[in-house]
Amino acid sequence: MHSLAALPGNRILVHGGGKLATRLAGQLNIPQQLVEGRRITDAETLKIVTMVYAGYINKNIVAQLQRHHCAAIGISGADGNAVRAHKRTHPAIDYGFAGDVDEVNTDFFRSLLEQNLLPVVAPITHDGHGQLLNTNADTIAQEIARSLSAYYETCLVYAFEKNGVLMDAGDESSVIPKIDPDTYRELKQQQKVFAGMIPKLDNAFAALDSGVACVVIGRAEDIHQLISGEKGTRITHE
Amino acid sequence: MHSLAALPGNRILVHGGGKLATRLAGQLNIPQQLVEGRRITDAETLKIVTMVYAGYINKNIVAQLQRHHCAAIGISGADGNAVRAHKRTHPAIDYGFAGDVDEVNTDFFRSLLEQNLLPVVAPITHDGHGQLLNTNADTIAQEIARSLSAYYETCLVYAFEKNGVLMDAGDESSVIPKIDPDTYRELKQQQKVFAGMIPKLDNAFAALDSGVACVVIGRAEDIHQLISGEKGTRITHE
Repeated sequence: MHSLAALPGNRILVHGGGKLATRLAGQLNIPQQLVEGRRITDAETLKIVTMVYAGYINKNIVAQLQRHHCAAIGISGADGNAVRAHKRTHPAIDYGFAGDVDEVNTDFFRSLLEQNLLPVVAPITHDGHGQLLNTNADTIAQEIARSLSAYYETCLVYAFEKNGVLMDAGDESSVIPKIDPDTYRELKQQQKVFAGMIPKLDNAFAALDSGVACVVIGRAEDIHQLISGEKGTRITHE
Repeated sequence: MHSLAALPGNRILVHGGGKLATRLAGQLNIPQQLVEGRRITDAETLKIVTMVYAGYINKNIVAQLQRHHCAAIGISGADGNAVRAHKRTHPAIDYGFAGDVDEVNTDFFRSLLEQNLLPVVAPITHDGHGQLLNTNADTIAQEIARSLSAYYETCLVYAFEKNGVLMDAGDESSVIPKIDPDTYRELKQQQKVFAGMIPKLDNAFAALDSGVACVVIGRAEDIHQLISGEKGTRITHE
């Protein structure tokens, strides 16, 4: 939180919280099912993720940022109609109340940033008809970044618990500093990319394609060095 | 939600959620203790109220208002440093993470209202040092109303599940239309006021004393008639 609070420029934080949601579901005896990393969101699970993401995690992050004198404001996609989505339809799998993003309210985010507020976004969206939806945090981050790239030079940082995309999943020193489309193709062919990494990388290239200036993957604590290019994996077209 | 969305002028909604919090605590086997209507908030209970108030209830209200084309934004006291509080100290009772309000960020609320946003406030505050606190919703409503009464003609409505303050708790037609300080004293002496009503009424008079133009108590569905004076109980100094 401290390093994010100290970062210059406009900032938006999109967070997840899957592990805590899974733990709470366990305590409440609500079985969880994941398909290709995506949570099947029945009505009870939607309650849980709304409580954990938009409540517990979001407000604790905001309180920590405020502690560092950072004017954070926690929102979900319903607040200010920030991120509108529709219930996912899939020919074979019923994902339940999972949402795919339709539209980011760019004006709303710009207005918050112009008030020097730091939006902290929980991965819960709405459909505009009163229904909340569970939406992948990486996708929300990418959609917000691309929508704002028309107004700002935008850098999208995927912060997670590793130093970057690793050549050897067990070796934190094996960070691949740069991935371009050719490298990505090779890595996938050689099955050197960890399966969980593929949606992140697909998202990263999609973001670059739609105007985001830079995409970096790495450890949250290293945010300054991720942006300066000293650490992490940079996704690039060059 | 529909009647609130249709109400003209600037609006702020402060909500509670105690019943749902108590139910979730039961499901998680976390015993709850109430002293004079106030919840003893240990660390586990703070998690629960943060999830239920700032997550589940807040986001569902916002989604419903958005559905009625009302530009709602859900916040807690931590967001935008909206409501700062301190941990309650009491000579005899340890209330845990219960917060008493220090300051309402009037500028933040004014700025939201000037953007035609309807703030939906969960009764969770923060102390500015990273700690979230559980705070009584009626008190937050009163503190926000008094802080805004310097800028707006402010009407404070306590909406609950009854038609107003009742002479006979079992008879919904026994609404007392007007309570002034003299009536209040008499009602208390004759023990005709339900105990749970007393903090609401004390809050109501405190609000009037500090510049709030009108205070009404009644049913949420009747919000238009509460404000016009056709229904509910009006608290007044005259």
